[in-house]
Amino acid sequence: MAAPSQPMVSEPRKALRVYLHLKDRILSGALAPTARMPSEPDLATQHGVSRVTIRSALERLAEEGLVERRPGSGTYVRSPSRTATLVADFSNVFTHLVEMGRSTEVRLLAFGYMLPTPAVAEGLGLDPGEEVQRSVRVRITDGMPFSYLVTYVPKRIGISYSEADLRSTPLLELLERSGARVASARQTVGASQAGPEIADALGVETGAALLSITRIVKDETGAGVEYLYALYRPDLYELQLDLERTRQGRSMRWAAISPSAAGRPAGARRSEPRNAKNPGIVKRKTTR
Amino acid sequence: MAAPSQPMVSEPRKALRVYLHLKDRILSGALAPTARMPSEPDLATQHGVSRVTIRSALERLAEEGLVERRPGSGTYVRSPSRTATLVADFSNVFTHLVEMGRSTEVRLLAFGYMLPTPAVAEGLGLDPGEEVQRSVRVRITDGMPFSYLVTYVPKRIGISYSEADLRSTPLLELLERSGARVASARQTVGASQAGPEIADALGVETGAALLSITRIVKDETGAGVEYLYALYRPDLYELQLDLERTRQGRSMRWAAISPSAAGRPAGARRSEPRNAKNPGIVKRKTTR
Repeated sequence: MAAPSQPMVSEPRKALRVYLHLKDRILSGALAPTARMPSEPDLATQHGVSRVTIRSALERLAEEGLVERRPGSGTYVRSPSRTATLVADFSNVFTHLVEMGRSTEVRLLAFGYMLPTPAVAEGLGLDPGEEVQRSVRVRITDGMPFSYLVTYVPKRIGISYSEADLRSTPLLELLERSGARVASARQTVGASQAGPEIADALGVETGAALLSITRIVKDETGAGVEYLYALYRPDLYELQLDLERTRQGRSMRWAAISPSAAGRPAGARRSEPRNAKNPGIVKRKTTR
Repeated sequence: MAAPSQPMVSEPRKALRVYLHLKDRILSGALAPTARMPSEPDLATQHGVSRVTIRSALERLAEEGLVERRPGSGTYVRSPSRTATLVADFSNVFTHLVEMGRSTEVRLLAFGYMLPTPAVAEGLGLDPGEEVQRSVRVRITDGMPFSYLVTYVPKRIGISYSEADLRSTPLLELLERSGARVASARQTVGASQAGPEIADALGVETGAALLSITRIVKDETGAGVEYLYALYRPDLYELQLDLERTRQGRSMRWAAISPSAAGRPAGARRSEPRNAKNPGIVKRKTTR
């Protein structure tokens, strides 16, 4: 690698590369817990970047609890920190979301009516020119914003509740109150980089990776009643699905274990402590 | 915002901000399809950055098919492009992965034995000092790498197959051939930023958002047989779960619809074309 130049300002793109590289090495075990990291000048030479850049990468690792900086001694890899995460059972995530609506705080960022984007119009099966109610909410748990929710509801349903209702009541409950008979949903899960506004609302850096869920909810007639685009901070929220192998005739299959689908009591398959107030949400300690 | 300075080099961090901001506006419909974008000098003034930075952000949007640059005329928002994505049915993802093992190409990047990280040892329930086989594979479909898979298997099972076996045969099949009776799995889904090595292997930019799945597979006795950490390109792969509402006594519940869990034929609930060769994978056109 070329000898580093030594600018006095941090190079953010290079700092991101070094940060992600070191993070991978720590999480994969290549840099073992308690190990002393190479010195800043050595890291700078290794990576062909300035010391300022190395310092910026190490600061971000320290903020995330992956390393510990001991003044006068050096930087040490920490035993992976155990951070609290909301874990939603994916196969039954709706029930939990209603419960979450009651236990977490909601901030309403936007509320109004508009013509939908093509994707929303197609997902909800709207007539051309049919308007939707669009709302943007941030959900907060323990003072930490963890999800950014953009929802679109056909205007004919949306007008049955107010902005104030949406601040206080889970959307699914409002939809049902309006007479919609919610019957099915399709969820698609992906990942996305946080843009500046979303990063700001969720308290993460621009460009941070977020878990994304697109959900289209339909009523008994197959008409769309809600289109949700949700972004979650992966350090605070993850999805979980338990699967078991079942015999079906001569072949083995995998089936999601969910209380209603598998016909078992919800408690029977859980080894982790449940949050008594929110039985759908497991607050657990995860090893990062 | 301050008047922009005009450096001749792009400012990557600022270009990322502008790119993500404009992308959000296009995907949310705030910038409508076919609309002409503001000129480069106007965008530079609006965002307080150089024209070089604006050009770099617009180039990335153009590469992703979100805008079209017409020389001498300007930059136009495109109708959201429809890109092919592998969609895996989340509630039955295993069966599909075996099928994918047969239909996609695999590149083996690493293979060896090592002491596990604390998270892997805990996940698999290993004795202290027990080694694991670690492999790193990249899975490719239509010439595009879409997943980066790191697997850990207890050494006592791993030694039953070779590096060459792993290049040609799905891991789940190798585990079963070794006598392991695979019975259950827990999958956790999140998101992560690509480090430089992983970005390189998947053909994305360092820092790009990836979908992550951690899966712990156990045998009939509850012993861990596989720990998987998988990263997926969200533009090429997403997870899907269909849910339906069911009445259980007096309360309504949500249940995952999967062929074996809900006892329906697989075809009955699908409206999208299936890939005939890989019935577990839906190749569909998504509207981004």
